[in-house]
Amino acid sequence: MANIKEIARMAGVSVTTVSRVLNNHPYVSEVKRTAVLNTIEKLNYTRNMNAVHLITGRTQAIAVIIPNINLFYFSVIIEGLAQEALLAQYRLILCQTDYRHEEELKVLEMLRNKEIDGVVIVSTRMSSEVIEEYTAYGPIVICQDRGERRFSSVYIEHYSAFRSGLQYLSDKGYQQIGYCEGRQHGSSSSIRQIAFSDFLAATGQPFHEEWMIHDCMNEEDGGRVLHELLKMKKRPNALIITGDHVAAGLIIEAWKNGIRIPEDLAVIGFDDQPIGRSLGLTTIDNQLPEMGATAFRIIYDKIQNNDGHPVHRKLEYRIIERSTV
Amino acid sequence: MANIKEIARMAGVSVTTVSRVLNNHPYVSEVKRTAVLNTIEKLNYTRNMNAVHLITGRTQAIAVIIPNINLFYFSVIIEGLAQEALLAQYRLILCQTDYRHEEELKVLEMLRNKEIDGVVIVSTRMSSEVIEEYTAYGPIVICQDRGERRFSSVYIEHYSAFRSGLQYLSDKGYQQIGYCEGRQHGSSSSIRQIAFSDFLAATGQPFHEEWMIHDCMNEEDGGRVLHELLKMKKRPNALIITGDHVAAGLIIEAWKNGIRIPEDLAVIGFDDQPIGRSLGLTTIDNQLPEMGATAFRIIYDKIQNNDGHPVHRKLEYRIIERSTV
Repeated sequence: MANIKEIARMAGVSVTTVSRVLNNHPYVSEVKRTAVLNTIEKLNYTRNMNAVHLITGRTQAIAVIIPNINLFYFSVIIEGLAQEALLAQYRLILCQTDYRHEEELKVLEMLRNKEIDGVVIVSTRMSSEVIEEYTAYGPIVICQDRGERRFSSVYIEHYSAFRSGLQYLSDKGYQQIGYCEGRQHGSSSSIRQIAFSDFLAATGQPFHEEWMIHDCMNEEDGGRVLHELLKMKKRPNALIITGDHVAAGLIIEAWKNGIRIPEDLAVIGFDDQPIGRSLGLTTIDNQLPEMGATAFRIIYDKIQNNDGHPVHRKLEYRIIERSTV
Repeated sequence: MANIKEIARMAGVSVTTVSRVLNNHPYVSEVKRTAVLNTIEKLNYTRNMNAVHLITGRTQAIAVIIPNINLFYFSVIIEGLAQEALLAQYRLILCQTDYRHEEELKVLEMLRNKEIDGVVIVSTRMSSEVIEEYTAYGPIVICQDRGERRFSSVYIEHYSAFRSGLQYLSDKGYQQIGYCEGRQHGSSSSIRQIAFSDFLAATGQPFHEEWMIHDCMNEEDGGRVLHELLKMKKRPNALIITGDHVAAGLIIEAWKNGIRIPEDLAVIGFDDQPIGRSLGLTTIDNQLPEMGATAFRIIYDKIQNNDGHPVHRKLEYRIIERSTV
């Protein structure tokens, strides 16, 4: 197997250039870069990663703890993370853990073993104490509010975001409000359920079991919800829906069935997705891609500056007023 | 740090039970499982992974090479993969490589180093020869057609899928066909461009530069396309759109602007997404989630049976006839 000097000789560039290409250093001309990569391809050279790590002290990789890659809430956070990681030429290792404790610990162990430069935790059931023990080995950022801990965090306040949506409907005169939620379990779902029931109590409204609709994940579920509403004896006149995709499906089905939005039924969504913008959907933007991007920027900054101090960043939600309320 | 015997004693279960819990063995009662996990949590015990690997010879993890996690085409394949991995209690490690050769090699090196049990390659620019060299270290499955190679593959024929969509429009009497594509570069995009130009040549139609619309990724882009069409002197009477989300945005905008679908403009999409089902969109289902699921099933089967023989599986596309053509 060829070494770095032979590659330099064969590619007609300096050893420094080869090293820069291997380390994704920005100041290499495209011509030289291609020459080096082609030579490597030809020789099937694999650099000795451990040696490289020992020199730079970095792996150019961060790991992400995520319970399930294809749940919408998580995947949108990942979108923001992935974008920033590509820009910084950082490798992203997504570890799907299904909240299994030993799988989550494996990822933190990678940090201890210096296989990665940092860890972003999108969601976990690990206690803050367990996570804190690993802060000695490198930066950790969590996308949840865990208070002033020794690891960094970026979060939005799910409770007040949800309450503000309900308040907005109430201020517009809607008093019969239903709620379509995604997964019934999960930490932000629980927070929203509490917010919903607090709101009903605060405004003296009774809780209608059938106005609380579960397991709404996509557009087709939204269509199904519309038909459930049509069958009800007493219907809500407004819906808060935790997901623009679901809201979109409901609105399309409403159009097909002659239900006027917002006259017959007001709808407020969550997430500010492109389909919602196409339909003029009023929604609560809780900045999920920004959460991912911020998590990456924090960890990248900590790695670059070898800075062990945690930062805690709260992102603001905002209501985007369009035409469905 | 406690060892497995101490954990067993503290949790009041047998050593075998602790070992089963650590290895995600299915035959453990929920009560015992919880007792063990709580004890581990209390002791902050991390099992010695290397020792475990030496015993079982497996890591219960597979790595996935993916250029960019948040491109729709890739993320839908991942959806199918992730679902199956969770069911099999396998950890999925997604490595975002941005097609960088050294990053792709790092993942294959993980296989050589027995850090993972197998590799799924969603897309790569590595040559088949490079990949073949790693088949000695464990199973590899690629989601592309690479011919009868020493690694496994699962794929659809992008060329004929696309041609069949064009033929379908042609059979329905549409002779002015435009094409909205996603990213302009990438291997399946190139194949589709060739299919489009072969089709025009075969049917004796001229190529209209402006009927070929690029960079259409989401619903808002679809809305933009509708307005571009409205500005054209000579418009296509049918569109093939590589993505149901884009098609959905176009259809919604067409409704708003009084353009009748399919009378004024026929639309055929790709992917069979929920939003397309809500809108009655005619589409070509190229089974992307099934591709991911199949890739996992192949690799899982190879791991379980220690089977080094490659399999090559072609998935069939199908046209789903609804109401937009």
